[in-house]
Amino acid sequence: MRGGRLGEFELIARYFAPLAKDFQGARGLKSDNAFLPSDARHDLVVKTDTIVAGVHFLANERPEWVAAKALRVCLSDLAAGGSSPFVYQLSLSLQKGWREKWVAGFAQGLAADQRRYGIAICGGDTVVSPGPTTITITAFGRVPKGRGLARDGARPGDELWVSGTIGDGALGLLAARGRLKSLQLERRYRLPQPRTDLGPRLVGIANATADVSDGLLADAGHIADASGLAVTIERERVPLSAAARRVVRGEPSLWANVLGGGDDYELVMAIPPRRRNALLAAARAADVPVTKIGTFERGRGVRLTVEGRVVRAPRAGYVHF
Amino acid sequence: MRGGRLGEFELIARYFAPLAKDFQGARGLKSDNAFLPSDARHDLVVKTDTIVAGVHFLANERPEWVAAKALRVCLSDLAAGGSSPFVYQLSLSLQKGWREKWVAGFAQGLAADQRRYGIAICGGDTVVSPGPTTITITAFGRVPKGRGLARDGARPGDELWVSGTIGDGALGLLAARGRLKSLQLERRYRLPQPRTDLGPRLVGIANATADVSDGLLADAGHIADASGLAVTIERERVPLSAAARRVVRGEPSLWANVLGGGDDYELVMAIPPRRRNALLAAARAADVPVTKIGTFERGRGVRLTVEGRVVRAPRAGYVHF
Repeated sequence: MRGGRLGEFELIARYFAPLAKDFQGARGLKSDNAFLPSDARHDLVVKTDTIVAGVHFLANERPEWVAAKALRVCLSDLAAGGSSPFVYQLSLSLQKGWREKWVAGFAQGLAADQRRYGIAICGGDTVVSPGPTTITITAFGRVPKGRGLARDGARPGDELWVSGTIGDGALGLLAARGRLKSLQLERRYRLPQPRTDLGPRLVGIANATADVSDGLLADAGHIADASGLAVTIERERVPLSAAARRVVRGEPSLWANVLGGGDDYELVMAIPPRRRNALLAAARAADVPVTKIGTFERGRGVRLTVEGRVVRAPRAGYVHF
Repeated sequence: MRGGRLGEFELIARYFAPLAKDFQGARGLKSDNAFLPSDARHDLVVKTDTIVAGVHFLANERPEWVAAKALRVCLSDLAAGGSSPFVYQLSLSLQKGWREKWVAGFAQGLAADQRRYGIAICGGDTVVSPGPTTITITAFGRVPKGRGLARDGARPGDELWVSGTIGDGALGLLAARGRLKSLQLERRYRLPQPRTDLGPRLVGIANATADVSDGLLADAGHIADASGLAVTIERERVPLSAAARRVVRGEPSLWANVLGGGDDYELVMAIPPRRRNALLAAARAADVPVTKIGTFERGRGVRLTVEGRVVRAPRAGYVHF
């Protein structure tokens, strides 16, 4: 209680240890280490993501949503890897002058997502920094041994499919900045919905997967590059939400944001045509719509067509640096 | 190469991907995820630690040593858990205005420690932040299934042993700040030497372990608390380096730093008397000196004795917040 503020041990005991109670290997966050049991049937899939206040989330964002965003961007990658979420470690670097109320809200956000996704915290670190509040999550998923999905397995002739709708994340960022008006899109940007139900069902169906975090063109391009192929995307086929459709109808230049922006956290998949029905069954079981939007073929790079004509496809995606 | 500076993908390809080449599950850092193979004979031990420039390391510290410190504080915990180092994930949050030369030195430091400890990077994240450079390492070790060591297994009558020498870290911090003059102590503070050779050999020998990161009194106290016991430490028995002995002889008040400061990264162990010979054999095999400095008994708290008299034992350890 130095300076009227909780110390590290008290903070962990009050807010984070309760989140560890359902996972024995977390040792109640009282141990320096976490112990993850392993077995011969699974691989662990691991993903680390860092988000910084004022860079990756709005500095005045609700702490519950900051927690959700930090977790969900990792869960989205775990889903793309074909894995089911398991546990996570949290590094919380609080900016000097942090308030307990913020930490309480942050922990509430973690608790809600732990219930939603069936995960538990298993360790981490808490420090105070002069810099902006920075959150690093390392999330662990489980996938049947040797069956993990990655970007490098697409074959010529595979179809390019996406889950859900594309562009809501990038348009939602514009809404969050006041450039557009749509609470629905804004919420979609602020609170990603990772496809954790669909991802594990893609094992044995998809040849390659990625999540749409950098932008559809960039992420489909990553699959193509990693697989040594070209990919063609037909813009008419790209599924848009009703809100996004209204926006691009009014301002067609925003197609660049829809296709080039990021933060959709949908899955892009390379699916062999013979497994199309298996994909549709998996999508029904996960209650997630999927749409075919293109094809992989021999060659290099990303081609975007509009009404059959190839257009220039900027694919830088979200500029991290 | 935006703004004359490497982008995230180029940075990873140039400096970090080469560090992943010996671990297949890292997928060359080209995948969003890492894949850790597991088997039925081991548990994974996981530890996350965050260090912030100007808080946990000197802002002008050599980048090779920053990398070593970030890694080694985690390896020390893995050793205390009885595990052998395996792989790690790195989150690197670079302060705006970062220079490629710094990153190159940092990666060199990682490379040197990868060789030294037989580990490989398997993933992570790289971001740019307005705040100070912040490094989070999540390190993974392997331990025989169900045999991992923690703080909560000490029994009444167990002896308290420590590896190496105590106090060099805290006195080294004073040296780094110019308060003392000793290059040897300063180096010990800046470049921890985790006991990765000894830790795995303690499985089946130690009932409980911790590393000395918060300070001897605090960390021995953590074992006592977690085990529901009291611990008594005899100050005369605490092993000091020749340099530390000279310092406390000249300025006895610095015993408070020796016993209460942190950053020694030695191991403290609860050893049943009947396993004393096994401990000595393990220490010989690891080429690490070990010293008996006290005893666990029924009760609560930490008692420090000097020439048989109990003295007040401040045990806050390093104040994190």
